[in-house]
Amino acid sequence: MFNIKDLGIRTIVSPITADNFIDDMYRTLYCHYVDLRHNTSGSASESLELAGPRKMIFFDPSKTKAAVITCGGLSPGINDVIRAIVMELYYRYQVKNINGIRYGFRGLIPAFGHSIVDLEPDLVKDIHTVGGSILSSSRGNQDIAQMVESLARMNINLFFCIGGDGTMKAAKLITEEINRQNLKIGVIGIPKTIDNDLNLIDKTFGFDTAISEVVKVIQCAHVESKGAPKGIGLVKIMGRESGHIAVSATLANNDVNFALIPEVPFDLRGDRGFLKILEERIIRRDHALILVSEGAGQDLFSRSEVQKKDASGNIRLRDIGILLKSEIESYFLSKGFEINLKYFDPSYIIRSVPANASDSIYCTLLGQYAVHAGMAGKTGMVVGRYNNEYIHLPLEAVTSRKKVNINGNLWMRALEATGQPFSMKN
Amino acid sequence: MFNIKDLGIRTIVSPITADNFIDDMYRTLYCHYVDLRHNTSGSASESLELAGPRKMIFFDPSKTKAAVITCGGLSPGINDVIRAIVMELYYRYQVKNINGIRYGFRGLIPAFGHSIVDLEPDLVKDIHTVGGSILSSSRGNQDIAQMVESLARMNINLFFCIGGDGTMKAAKLITEEINRQNLKIGVIGIPKTIDNDLNLIDKTFGFDTAISEVVKVIQCAHVESKGAPKGIGLVKIMGRESGHIAVSATLANNDVNFALIPEVPFDLRGDRGFLKILEERIIRRDHALILVSEGAGQDLFSRSEVQKKDASGNIRLRDIGILLKSEIESYFLSKGFEINLKYFDPSYIIRSVPANASDSIYCTLLGQYAVHAGMAGKTGMVVGRYNNEYIHLPLEAVTSRKKVNINGNLWMRALEATGQPFSMKN
Amino acid sequence: MFNIKDLGIRTIVSPITADNFIDDMYRTLYCHYVDLRHNTSGSASESLELAGPRKMIFFDPSKTKAAVITCGGLSPGINDVIRAIVMELYYRYQVKNINGIRYGFRGLIPAFGHSIVDLEPDLVKDIHTVGGSILSSSRGNQDIAQMVESLARMNINLFFCIGGDGTMKAAKLITEEINRQNLKIGVIGIPKTIDNDLNLIDKTFGFDTAISEVVKVIQCAHVESKGAPKGIGLVKIMGRESGHIAVSATLANNDVNFALIPEVPFDLRGDRGFLKILEERIIRRDHALILVSEGAGQDLFSRSEVQKKDASGNIRLRDIGILLKSEIESYFLSKGFEINLKYFDPSYIIRSVPANASDSIYCTLLGQYAVHAGMAGKTGMVVGRYNNEYIHLPLEAVTSRKKVNINGNLWMRALEATGQPFSMKN
Amino acid sequence: MFNIKDLGIRTIVSPITADNFIDDMYRTLYCHYVDLRHNTSGSASESLELAGPRKMIFFDPSKTKAAVITCGGLSPGINDVIRAIVMELYYRYQVKNINGIRYGFRGLIPAFGHSIVDLEPDLVKDIHTVGGSILSSSRGNQDIAQMVESLARMNINLFFCIGGDGTMKAAKLITEEINRQNLKIGVIGIPKTIDNDLNLIDKTFGFDTAISEVVKVIQCAHVESKGAPKGIGLVKIMGRESGHIAVSATLANNDVNFALIPEVPFDLRGDRGFLKILEERIIRRDHALILVSEGAGQDLFSRSEVQKKDASGNIRLRDIGILLKSEIESYFLSKGFEINLKYFDPSYIIRSVPANASDSIYCTLLGQYAVHAGMAGKTGMVVGRYNNEYIHLPLEAVTSRKKVNINGNLWMRALEATGQPFSMKN
Repeated sequence: MFNIKDLGIRTIVSPITADNFIDDMYRTLYCHYVDLRHNTSGSASESLELAGPRKMIFFDPSKTKAAVITCGGLSPGINDVIRAIVMELYYRYQVKNINGIRYGFRGLIPAFGHSIVDLEPDLVKDIHTVGGSILSSSRGNQDIAQMVESLARMNINLFFCIGGDGTMKAAKLITEEINRQNLKIGVIGIPKTIDNDLNLIDKTFGFDTAISEVVKVIQCAHVESKGAPKGIGLVKIMGRESGHIAVSATLANNDVNFALIPEVPFDLRGDRGFLKILEERIIRRDHALILVSEGAGQDLFSRSEVQKKDASGNIRLRDIGILLKSEIESYFLSKGFEINLKYFDPSYIIRSVPANASDSIYCTLLGQYAVHAGMAGKTGMVVGRYNNEYIHLPLEAVTSRKKVNINGNLWMRALEATGQPFSMKN
Repeated sequence: MFNIKDLGIRTIVSPITADNFIDDMYRTLYCHYVDLRHNTSGSASESLELAGPRKMIFFDPSKTKAAVITCGGLSPGINDVIRAIVMELYYRYQVKNINGIRYGFRGLIPAFGHSIVDLEPDLVKDIHTVGGSILSSSRGNQDIAQMVESLARMNINLFFCIGGDGTMKAAKLITEEINRQNLKIGVIGIPKTIDNDLNLIDKTFGFDTAISEVVKVIQCAHVESKGAPKGIGLVKIMGRESGHIAVSATLANNDVNFALIPEVPFDLRGDRGFLKILEERIIRRDHALILVSEGAGQDLFSRSEVQKKDASGNIRLRDIGILLKSEIESYFLSKGFEINLKYFDPSYIIRSVPANASDSIYCTLLGQYAVHAGMAGKTGMVVGRYNNEYIHLPLEAVTSRKKVNINGNLWMRALEATGQPFSMKN
Repeated sequence: MFNIKDLGIRTIVSPITADNFIDDMYRTLYCHYVDLRHNTSGSASESLELAGPRKMIFFDPSKTKAAVITCGGLSPGINDVIRAIVMELYYRYQVKNINGIRYGFRGLIPAFGHSIVDLEPDLVKDIHTVGGSILSSSRGNQDIAQMVESLARMNINLFFCIGGDGTMKAAKLITEEINRQNLKIGVIGIPKTIDNDLNLIDKTFGFDTAISEVVKVIQCAHVESKGAPKGIGLVKIMGRESGHIAVSATLANNDVNFALIPEVPFDLRGDRGFLKILEERIIRRDHALILVSEGAGQDLFSRSEVQKKDASGNIRLRDIGILLKSEIESYFLSKGFEINLKYFDPSYIIRSVPANASDSIYCTLLGQYAVHAGMAGKTGMVVGRYNNEYIHLPLEAVTSRKKVNINGNLWMRALEATGQPFSMKN
Repeated sequence: MFNIKDLGIRTIVSPITADNFIDDMYRTLYCHYVDLRHNTSGSASESLELAGPRKMIFFDPSKTKAAVITCGGLSPGINDVIRAIVMELYYRYQVKNINGIRYGFRGLIPAFGHSIVDLEPDLVKDIHTVGGSILSSSRGNQDIAQMVESLARMNINLFFCIGGDGTMKAAKLITEEINRQNLKIGVIGIPKTIDNDLNLIDKTFGFDTAISEVVKVIQCAHVESKGAPKGIGLVKIMGRESGHIAVSATLANNDVNFALIPEVPFDLRGDRGFLKILEERIIRRDHALILVSEGAGQDLFSRSEVQKKDASGNIRLRDIGILLKSEIESYFLSKGFEINLKYFDPSYIIRSVPANASDSIYCTLLGQYAVHAGMAGKTGMVVGRYNNEYIHLPLEAVTSRKKVNINGNLWMRALEATGQPFSMKN
């Protein structure tokens, strides 16, 4: 279930000095629970491969060429990952030949004519102090065969892909095409999603930093909501399919009165609907703060609207922030009730800041473990952290999404912090 | 021209110990230039009254009651001003009876039923650490007679108004009504506009803080514009009638490529129009960053659209940010040219943060000078800083707007920093 | 081994609504590794109790009285923990009677005469925005019998202790005395050490925030070291017995050239000693940055110096920062070599800031789990996070210290980041 | 009195396009006050030359070579000034030949062997985002003749000196030597002192940023002082001969209880001495926060101690922070009174941060005005801001120090904010 493919037998002694080489057979349990009532515990047959340096490696450092690519939207820490990959390859494995592919998968399609960047320590040593990606990025799929042809023509042996689940799906197809052609190119993913909703991954990089920034915006929205009669602060944040950002930000700050997330549908109208409950709050407290994930309330849009997809193949979400703004305004207008609504849409500000110290360390480790895996000849996999251990997972394992458990501890906490009802459905 | 009215003869010895009492007759020149070519210099007959404590005061502290009001939009530092007024009245002049009027001028209209806050040192001592106004605010005019009646009924002697030019116009009318009724109520304004466009005032409070915040947003927009192929960052900021914020932010950060301000009209279309020049930049550099004041390009909207006014009586501006976004997107679409535009509208985030240290000190001094003026029996005036001196100005003096001088040093600097042409008119 | 004591049979149905009640028998494995080479895995007989709400509880909320105490040095997040305990008790369990003990254990000794604080939601709701502890703290042991007598006299049922390992040792003694007297007082610890060196605890609260602050200081030291000829930045940071802070800060920032930690002894003099290697670096690069844990190099002090203990019973460390400063200066002076050394001792600045968003969430959860444990009648235990699960540990389990593994991954990383030799012993 | 020397007749038409050329004869009054009681006003015969571009310039841009040097301690904004000089010379005046002298005046002494940096836009465009000086700095005097010889040999025409009053004295001597040799080298100073104590200069660059940083440290010290029984926070900050930083920081933050500055001597012992008053405060409030300028209380050291000078020729101050720490501790020890004193010495942290937005703009303008002055053939002068106007001052004008007026408004404010007595002398 969680087996990682190898490109071949490892015959090279690793050039790194370490006391902590990891054996593929020394693993971590998938389920670490034990139930003493029934004498059951996680089965030893389901386990995950631990990340870390291998004593024997597959690629000969002096003849190895690596490439790094960044795809999809920005997230704090991308540059930290790039930097760590380059530093680890260059100084620890003595792989000096590292290409940066610009503008995501497009950079592998000759027709776009994007140039290649030589990644060297001097170039990357300070990039973690700025946000974004020095390689730039793009969304959307490109032709798999053309991309593999480019990698082959460039003599790439190690292909590091930093990106979201769309990127990992493409990386999977690239891996299959490479295998079909029997090429010796390892494909290693470093999963990136600011939404923190990857299956089997404790926390995605950039998430901590994002929460810090969201909290600052909530503070501003709170100030604004209290700064005018019947003030309402409405903040739309990231979270296409999951409300992890909304829930964490709610817990980090006690000013949110309504957290609306994709996992919890709600009605606008009706006696138990959101607008009625908002009205009661406004009457009682004279101000309110609403935090809404971009993926929340998608069922509120009329079904007849054709669903569009963006360049990454994601369903283009209808804008719940704008819908809420207009519904709230017209609801209170119809009640002859003057409100002062201030709308905040800070996503681009949040995802483009540099990583904070904790994310920076995390990204550094992810980059280093990706290099260890790649040099060992692993392929078709991602590095991640699971129950506090750094592990290898097959590319397909991370493409399903982790939802907020609406019966779980965190959501209970969020409900209590906001004071909102368990359900706003009629 | 700049004479300040007094409520009456000052007969009380000031309770404060100071070595720096100011005499009304000791003033600062309106024009401090001298031209040695023609032996001319600023006329001594045009001078401004210096702010500061007076040796003799008009109000008897033990019998004085003060009120503070905050009107209009938020700006960093409002709480610092409130705090300074309360502390100065309470500890230095021993005026212990201070009311806070909630929700701006509405708080003086009985029909709204807003309660009054007792302002005491314990309540205000830490309020400078949070943004907004602890008194909350509102926009719009209220009935002058009713407000004066409320002040009289509450036995207010000193009325401190923190607000923008609309507030100062209302304060002027209130003063006139007070004079008509021969009441002994001093009206002292502390002018607030984040746009920094008040005539005769070096700098409005909150401006420094605002620029720091705008610069952070520009950095994010810069990162986003470089993070995708043909990336365009478009940032709309405050500045209804003047581009001071846009110009200062451009000078504090070297990443802005186009600064669009109300003072400089521009065309969208045509060979010398903005869109063509933007296209050239994108072709040349692959990304661009645009900073636009909310009041820029208002002539680009069709004249037939009826101009609306907001509650403060300001003309409701058409949204230049949204217009530019849609015009840029359709222009490049028509050229078959894929761009990635990210739009930023951070005004509410910027104006709701706490004041930085420098604004905090400035606000403290403004509040203290307002109290000195009020206790001396001055009325119908504002406190401000002019050529580095704290002064008194008649209320009417600050209601005209200071524009960016488009032939002056700052705008020249901004043009050079952005590299944009002097004119984008055909 | 990791069994938690109960005060008695739980007979009260928990008032909280939750879908996620935890059974004492459902646990997490102590060892989650599996070795497929030998078919061995962590033994199910060694497991840890999971934290979380219990369906049946021991204390009757309406008759329960709780107390909270904070001991030892400051750490970011203490107020967040206090706040979470109060909110969880008050709103979720309806325990309205909560006392705050001021100045640590002293507050339980009548002779000091410290007053008690009533902890209510209104008092604590915003305290997470400021650093420190609203209860204040103190160091040092107090008489156990007197403290238990105070708790009994105050009718405390639940005693929440936030503090370091000294505090946990005292809490253990208090628990034993309570048991001896057969009192029904539960003792729940929330372990606090900014050094992050508690056994079996993934990460202590405040650590993330501390690293962010240390990184800022390192950046300043780096700027200073490059700002003068042969500039040396010397930064002493926390870490009495372990170098976790030094190692994490080194990994989060690439400017540290020497990380000196308690786990790695070093010589000052001699060909392979620190001073010689520093000299080589200065000759080669003209500047250097040294990060030293306060507990590093304690063997460099002459043995004849009598070791003193501080009020907490910790051995009073000799000041390695001052020693290094003077040794470096005299070494280079003797070489006729002018250097510019700038010394930084920022510990008090780092530990007194408010928690960042991630620590704030963590503290909130720790506080809530502490309440669940207390209400269930658990005693003599602490809450913590182990392999990403919130768990209960006996008080004695956390009093041994976790060292940096000098053959492990993190220290290897730090060595590579700094470029310093594996050993600086002759 | 304030006349600026010219290197010769200006015969070149300025290449810059501007509408705002300044004539040497159009000036600003030295005294802008008017006293209507005696009909007196500032004399038009005392005026200062305005900074700004001149229509005719002295140096031919295509043949001009410039050099930039930074001397003395760090201050926020140095890199902003360097950047502005380079950008203005390069893009506006087309002077492409710009040298950066490394390590201050040492860089002009061949024996030190420091290399020269070519300053180009690409090198400097982002340097304002980091603290310190990219040219590095040094303290101390060097041989004037050798320095002038170096400038001559390098064919420097324009010499920009960024430094403190020691640097300005040396620049004066360099100018005189240049004149003696009849060389055509203009010497333009940009005065730097974080202490903000330059005569005739409204505010020195970096001061605003410094205050923001000091305020953060004060907040930490406040938290620490409240975090332990009888807690005392003691913060030593910059201010060799003046207390401007201490006073501004006190006004920006309301937690300081004692501000000790060089201008106000105080006794330690005795009934009205500082220690007695501190004791009373501790008894009354249980905590205290002391802010002390490094130059305060120098008379408390025994006269027999020989006064040393540092490399810059400044008298080496005895460490008042350490003295106060030990005096406070022994005073309370002798009273049998346990206190918890935390000592903060953050100067290096404060001066090495990047400039905030407002300082960044200010530095940019200073750099640009320095270039205008230099190209016009001015020499032996500094640029500065006086009463909100940018002006030229002779080098000698800024070498005297501006003290805090202890009868003035700011110090009165500080006394009120702290609540400390006017005098702590017996």
